[in-house]
Amino acid sequence: MGFQFSRKLTIEWGHCDPAGIVFNPRFFEFFDWSTALLVRAALGLEKAEMLAAYGVAGIPLVDTRATFHHPSRYGEEVEIVSGVTAVGRSSFEIGHRLFNAARLAVEAREKRVWVVRDGENGGRLKAQAMPDDVARKLKGA
Amino acid sequence: MGFQFSRKLTIEWGHCDPAGIVFNPRFFEFFDWSTALLVRAALGLEKAEMLAAYGVAGIPLVDTRATFHHPSRYGEEVEIVSGVTAVGRSSFEIGHRLFNAARLAVEAREKRVWVVRDGENGGRLKAQAMPDDVARKLKGA
Amino acid sequence: MGFQFSRKLTIEWGHCDPAGIVFNPRFFEFFDWSTALLVRAALGLEKAEMLAAYGVAGIPLVDTRATFHHPSRYGEEVEIVSGVTAVGRSSFEIGHRLFNAARLAVEAREKRVWVVRDGENGGRLKAQAMPDDVARKLKGA
Amino acid sequence: MGFQFSRKLTIEWGHCDPAGIVFNPRFFEFFDWSTALLVRAALGLEKAEMLAAYGVAGIPLVDTRATFHHPSRYGEEVEIVSGVTAVGRSSFEIGHRLFNAARLAVEAREKRVWVVRDGENGGRLKAQAMPDDVARKLKGA
Repeated sequence: MGFQFSRKLTIEWGHCDPAGIVFNPRFFEFFDWSTALLVRAALGLEKAEMLAAYGVAGIPLVDTRATFHHPSRYGEEVEIVSGVTAVGRSSFEIGHRLFNAARLAVEAREKRVWVVRDGENGGRLKAQAMPDDVARKLKGA
Repeated sequence: MGFQFSRKLTIEWGHCDPAGIVFNPRFFEFFDWSTALLVRAALGLEKAEMLAAYGVAGIPLVDTRATFHHPSRYGEEVEIVSGVTAVGRSSFEIGHRLFNAARLAVEAREKRVWVVRDGENGGRLKAQAMPDDVARKLKGA
Repeated sequence: MGFQFSRKLTIEWGHCDPAGIVFNPRFFEFFDWSTALLVRAALGLEKAEMLAAYGVAGIPLVDTRATFHHPSRYGEEVEIVSGVTAVGRSSFEIGHRLFNAARLAVEAREKRVWVVRDGENGGRLKAQAMPDDVARKLKGA
Repeated sequence: MGFQFSRKLTIEWGHCDPAGIVFNPRFFEFFDWSTALLVRAALGLEKAEMLAAYGVAGIPLVDTRATFHHPSRYGEEVEIVSGVTAVGRSSFEIGHRLFNAARLAVEAREKRVWVVRDGENGGRLKAQAMPDDVARKLKGA
């Protein structure tokens, strides 16, 4: 399996809705940030450094799926365990598992694409093969 | 096919990230609200009225998936076309298609469960069969 | 008084917190968007057009204050009435009043600065005098 | 001076707007959470415990003001230093200073009210005198 990263966070009042549970889009904020932290840790570079070092324009999300097993509430501390689950030519996949009191509360996976700006096409974003060392680091090899 | 609902919205500055495109969790906010509007239109009841009329505690999201085909940017007007795609015993599914300038930009689907509070189990939420008229209205019949 | 702009919006489920009322940062999202719409209407230009036409880098918020008189809840329709209250050399002020069922629920005011990038200082943002026609249009004259 | 609380956080990608700086409503999320953490630390109680122990319905924000001196950007670590600045009969005030690389970037202050549900008036929220020990703890005495 690929590079792993985990972090803990506390559910804030503003993350929750009138039912007293985390409003579902907030989980995607949590996972987006976990992915950013995982990639930073895997490459050993801040995002600005990564963009400059590789001439990449970003790693946009192209597909995501989440299953919500149990709600999380204000004040609860949760742990998000993330890991690279697949590394392709110009894309990679990450799985996230959010645990609340040791119980799997949310499972998600996402696919990110390595994109550059296409100088011949008005700067539009296009997928490009990832550099070998990026692929190797994401694989945790 | 089931009940349909569509609406237009304009992408706001605060919906977008430093890449100048909609930050992905915002799409889940858009879809959550589209589902709320669809259910309100299908049942002809405000949410508080729905909760009271049927003794239901809510319709939490249990599974969602989204595919992002094209980015959307500040100031663009998009249309979200939503429709009930499946109605089960105690759950239903909704599909959302977000169009930007007539181009399919995001596709998503979600599954919602009809839940009540279980008086014998400390008020925990549990799935329950949907009333016949709710199922019929969601089906758009 | 200066240029006026008003709009209506419905309070969404995701705008509200476990107390069932709008989470206060959401009001600042509402007001930020009202200001964007007011400026667009006053100048008759989309933001990208405004930036290009005047060589301005943006109109960042430098000061804001809000007083919350009454809570707003899920499903309520509110109206935000905004107006330019002062136009200075390189800044202007906007007042927002949010009405809920004809009752003044939130009052806010904000100060925005007209900034350009300083080519001699690494592109840092600096305040600059607003063009006369911008000032005139914001005054609603 | 009253009870003090400080914390550090890192600016996330999703906190920032297309100008690459923190979208202003996010600061109010940061401050709201700092206030929650300050009150929890001052009283030595989780929010649910506080509500139960004192029969209070909440401590809603009634007034806030913020001044933005310098922008903050993705990946920057900031420190928020919060402190109780005034304790009244049924309300208290908190000041927040957000430092970015040791420079004061945002200053804010807010007023919160101690409210209970009025059983004689349909459960409407009304201000009530704070218990002596709450006032004493907020004063940091």
